[in-house]
Amino acid sequence: MKRSEAEFRVDWEPIGKRVRIPDGETLLAAAQAAGVELVALCGGAGLCGSCRVRRMEGELSPLTPAEEAALTPEEIEAGYRLACQARPLSDVKIDVPPESLTTPQRLQVEGQEAEVPLDPMVEPVDLEIVPPDLHDLRADDLRVEAALAEEGVSPVSISPPVLASISDDLRTHRWSVRLAHRQGEVVAVLPTGTPLLGLAVDIGTTKLAAYLVDLGTGRTLAKTGAMNPQIAYGEDVIARIGYANDHPDGRQVLQSRLVATLNQMVADLCAEAGAEPEQIVEAVVVGNTVMHHLFAGLPVRQLGTAPYVPAVARPLNLRARDLGLRLAPGAYVYLPPNVAGYVGADHVSMLLACDVHKTRKTTIALDIGTNTEVTLAYNGRLISSSCASGPAFEGAHLKDGMRAAPGAIERVWIVGEKVHIQTIGNAPPVGICGSGILDAVAQMVEAGVLDRRGQIRPGHPRVRAGDRNRAFVLAPASISGHGRDVVVTRKDVNEIQLAKGAIRAGIEVLLAEAGIPAEAVEEVIVAGAFGTYLDIESAVRVGMFPPLPLDRFRQVGNAAGAGARQMLVSAARRREAEEIARRVEYVELTVHPAFRRCFVDALSF
Amino acid sequence: MKRSEAEFRVDWEPIGKRVRIPDGETLLAAAQAAGVELVALCGGAGLCGSCRVRRMEGELSPLTPAEEAALTPEEIEAGYRLACQARPLSDVKIDVPPESLTTPQRLQVEGQEAEVPLDPMVEPVDLEIVPPDLHDLRADDLRVEAALAEEGVSPVSISPPVLASISDDLRTHRWSVRLAHRQGEVVAVLPTGTPLLGLAVDIGTTKLAAYLVDLGTGRTLAKTGAMNPQIAYGEDVIARIGYANDHPDGRQVLQSRLVATLNQMVADLCAEAGAEPEQIVEAVVVGNTVMHHLFAGLPVRQLGTAPYVPAVARPLNLRARDLGLRLAPGAYVYLPPNVAGYVGADHVSMLLACDVHKTRKTTIALDIGTNTEVTLAYNGRLISSSCASGPAFEGAHLKDGMRAAPGAIERVWIVGEKVHIQTIGNAPPVGICGSGILDAVAQMVEAGVLDRRGQIRPGHPRVRAGDRNRAFVLAPASISGHGRDVVVTRKDVNEIQLAKGAIRAGIEVLLAEAGIPAEAVEEVIVAGAFGTYLDIESAVRVGMFPPLPLDRFRQVGNAAGAGARQMLVSAARRREAEEIARRVEYVELTVHPAFRRCFVDALSF
Repeated sequence: MKRSEAEFRVDWEPIGKRVRIPDGETLLAAAQAAGVELVALCGGAGLCGSCRVRRMEGELSPLTPAEEAALTPEEIEAGYRLACQARPLSDVKIDVPPESLTTPQRLQVEGQEAEVPLDPMVEPVDLEIVPPDLHDLRADDLRVEAALAEEGVSPVSISPPVLASISDDLRTHRWSVRLAHRQGEVVAVLPTGTPLLGLAVDIGTTKLAAYLVDLGTGRTLAKTGAMNPQIAYGEDVIARIGYANDHPDGRQVLQSRLVATLNQMVADLCAEAGAEPEQIVEAVVVGNTVMHHLFAGLPVRQLGTAPYVPAVARPLNLRARDLGLRLAPGAYVYLPPNVAGYVGADHVSMLLACDVHKTRKTTIALDIGTNTEVTLAYNGRLISSSCASGPAFEGAHLKDGMRAAPGAIERVWIVGEKVHIQTIGNAPPVGICGSGILDAVAQMVEAGVLDRRGQIRPGHPRVRAGDRNRAFVLAPASISGHGRDVVVTRKDVNEIQLAKGAIRAGIEVLLAEAGIPAEAVEEVIVAGAFGTYLDIESAVRVGMFPPLPLDRFRQVGNAAGAGARQMLVSAARRREAEEIARRVEYVELTVHPAFRRCFVDALSF
Repeated sequence: MKRSEAEFRVDWEPIGKRVRIPDGETLLAAAQAAGVELVALCGGAGLCGSCRVRRMEGELSPLTPAEEAALTPEEIEAGYRLACQARPLSDVKIDVPPESLTTPQRLQVEGQEAEVPLDPMVEPVDLEIVPPDLHDLRADDLRVEAALAEEGVSPVSISPPVLASISDDLRTHRWSVRLAHRQGEVVAVLPTGTPLLGLAVDIGTTKLAAYLVDLGTGRTLAKTGAMNPQIAYGEDVIARIGYANDHPDGRQVLQSRLVATLNQMVADLCAEAGAEPEQIVEAVVVGNTVMHHLFAGLPVRQLGTAPYVPAVARPLNLRARDLGLRLAPGAYVYLPPNVAGYVGADHVSMLLACDVHKTRKTTIALDIGTNTEVTLAYNGRLISSSCASGPAFEGAHLKDGMRAAPGAIERVWIVGEKVHIQTIGNAPPVGICGSGILDAVAQMVEAGVLDRRGQIRPGHPRVRAGDRNRAFVLAPASISGHGRDVVVTRKDVNEIQLAKGAIRAGIEVLLAEAGIPAEAVEEVIVAGAFGTYLDIESAVRVGMFPPLPLDRFRQVGNAAGAGARQMLVSAARRREAEEIARRVEYVELTVHPAFRRCFVDALSF
């Protein structure tokens, strides 16, 4: 493309999109041109501060008064700007914090990408193999074995699915091949020089994230997200277990639907990267224990009844082919270990990605979902538990709740009698998602609309009449997408109380186990989809988290997916994950003497 | 059953049938009552000597003059009798040599049953496992692992198909289980005390034989035979390869049809033994290289074109589940090594069963079929080759050829102008099977009906007129089952010449390789279905075998199946089989300088 004098290039990170804009345009315009969906609550007037981005490289126009008002000195120091105000004065590279993005990046494909030394399980060997003739009648497997031995790879075995096509493959590639071997086991036969790829997958109960990684460079070539198709068979893990138990072939149905979607994601990733699924010689899959078991074809009935134990805690190396996953014929899927029925391999992966097992700081690491896993790292110990935080943060069980999808209210500000809202995709409001209800409740507490016990007080103009079914109107029918009020009810508030109470109780029990006060916690790592989008201030205000300085909190996005990527390129990281699972002391909250008191204490505001 | 004074029990070995007969009845009557189909050419008149059996235990009536005439002194010495003459005087145990049996035992289920020390790959451990509760939340796999470690089994892995039902299994059996483990890998979870069983299978191109073996005792509990269902897709291995190449999913079709039949055989075996397929924790499968590859899902295209190399020569341990074989969930199928494209694992198994690798005698071991594998053991060497003997001995490519089925002429005696025949099942003759055509040709040579070059001479009353299409009538239309003559044509004789010439040439080339004359051969072991039923004298007479004393020949029945049973109960025997495959020096006849001359020499009579 010819570069005009009046154009600048804007690189959007970590999204990877790039756009050229004419001199004088704002970053917000650049984002819109690039299809980067920045939150822009006030429509670009510089008032709401929601379009915060961070300058990484290049020059921007000077700070405007609107920016000086909206940003803290620390933020300004760190390079934060408002996209609606700042204009590039050169080519620039701009970092978009997850909280500044609306829906399209909502699928859990971001997450911190820590560098780990490359040490993949599967390695390439390029070979020239001597073809057979009537005076050299060795079988094809012996030929391959001998050629590998010459390269120092021995002992050798060849994966049965590779054997199924080895003779045709060797002849098609004219005996000049790249073999992918996994500690001596040949898992793929490819043309010489073909890059070997890996697949990392995070199976969430609701969402799937998949990454295609070059095992030779460690680079993530493509990433994609999708809804977990099992949702059609039950919204949460308990409903899925029920489906598996109550339907003939229920487990098989859930497994094969999931794998069909993963195969489609693999096809999409490969199309984007210009690669073939046969190049994917290894995969790492993480998920909570139920997702792990359903993916791996393991029994889940015992996960649905007390004492809720996993069938399998040990790490697994399963053939992708056996699971129905179409990768290289002999590719394995590595599943890191589970800790307990409700502390799964995804939490282990998250702890790994955040190096919680190595930290010297007293750290709390959480993965918030229907079940929230919490780990306390203190004085060399890793103490973990799981709290039944319920589906309220996924929008379920709320009168106007919905998932994080266009039209969902995700941010709420109550300023006096005014209620400002931000919806995903800037669509007309039709419901409330997790971060929205958390904000709403926090703001209602702050504005005095809620009392300590969670009752809605009359008085605010947005409180809808009725003694027993009083509700707070976030968006009146006049502006909503469906012509009805979008409201927060007493019952909704109660759901949030139960959810945040469970999480806080989990944290408090772990602190009690360690015998330390909350103030001793030096870092709180918040991972996962909801954890990425929630407003920490709101979470502290409602009492979900202990009242620590905000700078002790770190929102890390899909850390489970990041850990999976690390384990994909590093055998050493797998060993660390296995070490984490061995080290974790699991605390079962339901039988812990301190739980009941902590939970009741944590219910009020 | 109440025993009458006037009854004796007759045990038929190795068939395993048992019957009671009144005092005074002959063994032939006892055989008919038991359903043991003895050859009885002369209808029980004591003339033909075809109903030869051998007394193992008990007392029989004194020799009759007919027996003294029909049996040699050596045979009498060895306990041979004519079933139509001998009458039990007590309970007796009678051995039926294969050559005295007609069709029903024709499926390859017999074969020598050498005793080998028990040393199975899979062993049982009975465990009482501690069930989980809210204070012991270990996953099921860790629980099993810990219990096994207490029994000294470690390190442990659990086969993925076992994991798929482990939680339900442990709870169904109330945590009291018998685990079957294969060198530390758990392959089955059964109720405490359940006997562990094994399956041995010989996959012939035409016939299948399967044995159910108790791994704890080494005893064969049941055996069964069936036709190879792949016959519908091609009679011989070349036709099967063609089908696999030319049809989409051809290989899969052949594989799944075969496995479906094997699953039915397993069900039959288990029904007979009062067992369940889930008790079968290990299998050994032998077959020629093409059958091996088609069963194991390996490529066969390269086996159909020069230089005809196997995809896989190494021994394989494949999961039965992956092959579609329904045994215990984690059961493995062991496939011993192949030697070459046309010297397969079945030949290795036969060499093992007959201890050809250990013999100090100069020995030739043959497995006669469409391809005939020949091995010469001489001075510590094992030299093998394969001859394209063609399907004539399976009744194919002959004018009136047929498989060994009821109505097939299987024995022929020409006495002057008379032609005596024996058919399978004593049915009216409808065709000629392998042993019948061999007998016919030998007898025609002996009677001067054939000249050295294989031309049919006029003169004998059974020679049908016509110069160019002269034929020898074995059974005239008047007695045949279909109202037409059953004949041997010049072309049929030619097929036999090619077949026996190929086998003899194979033998001669190996002797030339070793640099020894035929007379140096101390033992000739003839295995396989046809090898069991052929008449050695006839085979020597037509020149298929060198003219050695008849007592140097040993017909061993389905030795490949016997070897499979040995490898099923003994890991040491597997190592020996692998050693055999490594030791064998394979000689490719088509490029051997001596082959052409040997073959031409071997064509004439």
